[in-house]
Amino acid sequence: MTKLISPFKILARDENSKARTGILYTKHGMVRTPVFMPVATQACVKALTEEDLNYVGAECLLSNTYHLYLRPGTEALKKLGGLHNFMRWNKSILTDSGGFQVHSLSHLRKITEDGIWFKSHHDGSKHFFSPESVIESEAAIGSDIWTCLDVLMPNSAHKADLRRALATTKLWAERAAAHYKKIVPEQNIQQNEDGSFSVGHSILFGIIQGSIYPDLREEAAKHMARQDVHGFCIGGLSVGETLQEMNTAVEATIPHLPEGKPRYLMGLGTPIEILECIERGVDMFDCVWPTRVARNGQAMTSEGKVNIKNNAHRLSEEPLDKNCDCWVCKRYTRAYLSHLYRAGELTSHRLISIHNIRFLIKTMERVRAAILDGTFRQLKKEIIEKYK
Amino acid sequence: MTKLISPFKILARDENSKARTGILYTKHGMVRTPVFMPVATQACVKALTEEDLNYVGAECLLSNTYHLYLRPGTEALKKLGGLHNFMRWNKSILTDSGGFQVHSLSHLRKITEDGIWFKSHHDGSKHFFSPESVIESEAAIGSDIWTCLDVLMPNSAHKADLRRALATTKLWAERAAAHYKKIVPEQNIQQNEDGSFSVGHSILFGIIQGSIYPDLREEAAKHMARQDVHGFCIGGLSVGETLQEMNTAVEATIPHLPEGKPRYLMGLGTPIEILECIERGVDMFDCVWPTRVARNGQAMTSEGKVNIKNNAHRLSEEPLDKNCDCWVCKRYTRAYLSHLYRAGELTSHRLISIHNIRFLIKTMERVRAAILDGTFRQLKKEIIEKYK
Ligand SMILES: [Zn+2]
Ligand SMILES: [Zn+2]
Repeated sequence: MTKLISPFKILARDENSKARTGILYTKHGMVRTPVFMPVATQACVKALTEEDLNYVGAECLLSNTYHLYLRPGTEALKKLGGLHNFMRWNKSILTDSGGFQVHSLSHLRKITEDGIWFKSHHDGSKHFFSPESVIESEAAIGSDIWTCLDVLMPNSAHKADLRRALATTKLWAERAAAHYKKIVPEQNIQQNEDGSFSVGHSILFGIIQGSIYPDLREEAAKHMARQDVHGFCIGGLSVGETLQEMNTAVEATIPHLPEGKPRYLMGLGTPIEILECIERGVDMFDCVWPTRVARNGQAMTSEGKVNIKNNAHRLSEEPLDKNCDCWVCKRYTRAYLSHLYRAGELTSHRLISIHNIRFLIKTMERVRAAILDGTFRQLKKEIIEKYK
Repeated sequence: MTKLISPFKILARDENSKARTGILYTKHGMVRTPVFMPVATQACVKALTEEDLNYVGAECLLSNTYHLYLRPGTEALKKLGGLHNFMRWNKSILTDSGGFQVHSLSHLRKITEDGIWFKSHHDGSKHFFSPESVIESEAAIGSDIWTCLDVLMPNSAHKADLRRALATTKLWAERAAAHYKKIVPEQNIQQNEDGSFSVGHSILFGIIQGSIYPDLREEAAKHMARQDVHGFCIGGLSVGETLQEMNTAVEATIPHLPEGKPRYLMGLGTPIEILECIERGVDMFDCVWPTRVARNGQAMTSEGKVNIKNNAHRLSEEPLDKNCDCWVCKRYTRAYLSHLYRAGELTSHRLISIHNIRFLIKTMERVRAAILDGTFRQLKKEIIEKYK
C-alpha cells in the first residue's frame, strides 16, 4: 500500500462518465481541475509574459527539465532563486522530467539501466540523466510538481522493445520515488478540517507508459498505483496515434489508478481530445497547440476554428470570438488581426495566443461548472459539434 | 505671408541654445515637445500593442502612408473607421507621406512633374502617388498630422540632380497645401484664452529637403516658410551622413523657419543625435532604432548601452536599468532577459522594446523639464557622457 497522500480534493463526479472536478493543492496554491496548463518550455510561454498568463486565468504552467537543465542550467536557476523567481510566476509549475525531450530532440540517446546518455541539441555536448539526477534538477528548478524520468519509445517499436522500455520506466519510477523521500521532508502535506490541504513542498508524479497496447498500459498503471507518488502522468500519447487508439490506451489505464490522485495526460491538446479524456477520468492537460497555431494565424473560438489568413476576415469588424471575454476579443477586429498577421507583426502571435489560451482555460471553467451541475455530457456534445 | 496658424504653444525657451519646449495640439489631444514618436509603420509598433504604448507615455505615433496604402489599403482603412479605430490608438498619429519609402523600398521609381510611379515591394504591382493623392490617402487614414509628398535623393547624387529634386519637392508642397485647403474646412483651429488650441481637423506639415548642402537647405526652408503649412519636417537626414553634416544641415534650415511652428526631424535617432537637434531647435523625433536594436538584444539605459547577449548578464540579478521606472525593469532581471534572448523567445523583443521606448520617452520628459528649469545644457552633457 502506498503511504503518500495526495493533496487532491475531489469536489464532484459526473454521473454518466468518469469525469470529475477537484482541486490539486501545491506549495503555490490551488489548481482547479480539469485544468489546462500553458506550456513554458524554456521558462516562457511563447510570446507571452506572466502578466498575460495571470490575465487568462492560468493556475499551473508546464515547464521542462531537459530544456532548463541545458539553458539557463539548473545550477544557474538555483542561484537565481528557482524558476518561479526567475520568470516571476507565483502560481504552480509542473516540470516534465525530460524523458520525452531526450527522446525527440537530443542526438545519440543511449539508455543504460542506470540512466540516459544524450547529446545536447544546442551544442552536441554530452550529458547524463538518471532518475535521481532528474529529481535533483527539479529540486533546483523548484517546480511544484515533479515527474519521474521515463523511457519513451515510438509507437511503431516492436512490442518486445516497448516491454523492455516499460520495465526500465517502472524501475526508474521506484528509484525516483525513493530519492524524493530522501530529499523531501516527511509529512509536508497536511489535510485541513475543510478537506483542503496545506502543502509544504513539491509533490511527485509518476509517468505511465505502455504505448497503445492495453495490456502494457494496464501493467504500467497497476505498477504505478503501488508507488509512493502523489499523482500520475499518462505519457507516450498524442504522438501520432488515432483518437481511438488514444481513448483505448486511456481506458486501459484509468481503472487501475486510485480515485483520490490526479491524472495528467501529457501533450494534449485540441478541444475534442481534451473532452474525450476528461470523460475518461483525466484531470490535467498541457499542449503547445494553442500557441503554435496562434503563430500560424489560427484561432480556436466558440464557433470552431478561425483562420485569420482567410480573405473573408480582411474587412471584418467582428471580434475573433464574439463569445469570448478576453481583451483581444473586446478590443480588436478580425480585420486588424488579419492585417497584423499578413504584415508579419510579432504582435499578432501574442494577441492570438492570449485568445487561444483564454479560450481553452475558459472551456475548462465551463467543464468544471458542468460537472458540478451534472451537464457535462451536453457541454461536451455542444463543443465537439463545433470542432468536427 | 502664410495664413495658417499652427496649434503650437511654446512654453519655454532655453537661454543658451535654440531648444524650446511646448505643446502641439491635434484633434486627438496634446503632444508635448520635444517628443519622441514610436514608429508604427504598418499600424503597429513592432512587438507592442497600444496598451504598451500608453504605458510608456507615448503621445504621438508615426505611421506610413506608403505602407498603409499598400496594406491594408487606404480604402480598407476608410471602411474600417480610419487608422485610430483600426489599431485602437486614441492619441495622435503623424503619417509620413511615403516619399522616403517609395525611394528606399519600391522598385522602378519614375518621377514625373506630376507625381511618382512605383512598383509595390510586396507584389510588383504598379502605383502612382501625386501630391494630391497622398493628401487623399492621409485623409482616408485619418491621421492627425499629414505630410506633403516629397522627392528623396541619395546624398551622393550630383548637386544639379539634388537641385532639380528640390524644385519638384517645392512644387509638390504647394500643390499639397492647395489640396489640403480644398478638403479641410477653414478655421478648424481656434486659439483659446489660455493660449491652448482647439483643433477640429488634421494639420499639414511640409517637408524640407536639400541633402547636406547649406545653400539648398536654406532655399528649401525659406520656400517652405512661405507655404500654408502648420509645421515643418526636415527630411533627407539620418541616411548615412556624419553627425557634423547633419548638424550643419539643421543649422542651415532652422533660422529660416518661423518660431511659432513645430519642426520635426524625420528618422532620428539615438540619444546623442536627438539632443544635438533639440539644441538646434528641433521639436519632434521618430526612429525605429529603439525597437530594432531591442530585437537584437540591445538596451539603452541611464548608464549607456547594455547588450543583453553579453555573458556578464547571464547570472545578473540587476534590472536592465536601475534608474528606469518601467515595469520590465521593476520586474525582470538581466539574467531572465538574457535567457529569453538566447532562447529565441519573442517575449524578449517585446520586453526590451518597452524598456527602450520608455527610456527615450522619459529622456524627453527630462529634457522638457530641463528646458523649463534652465538646465538643458547640463542634462545634455550628462546624457551624452554615457553614449560616447
Ligand atoms: Zn478572445
Ligand atoms: Zn526599463
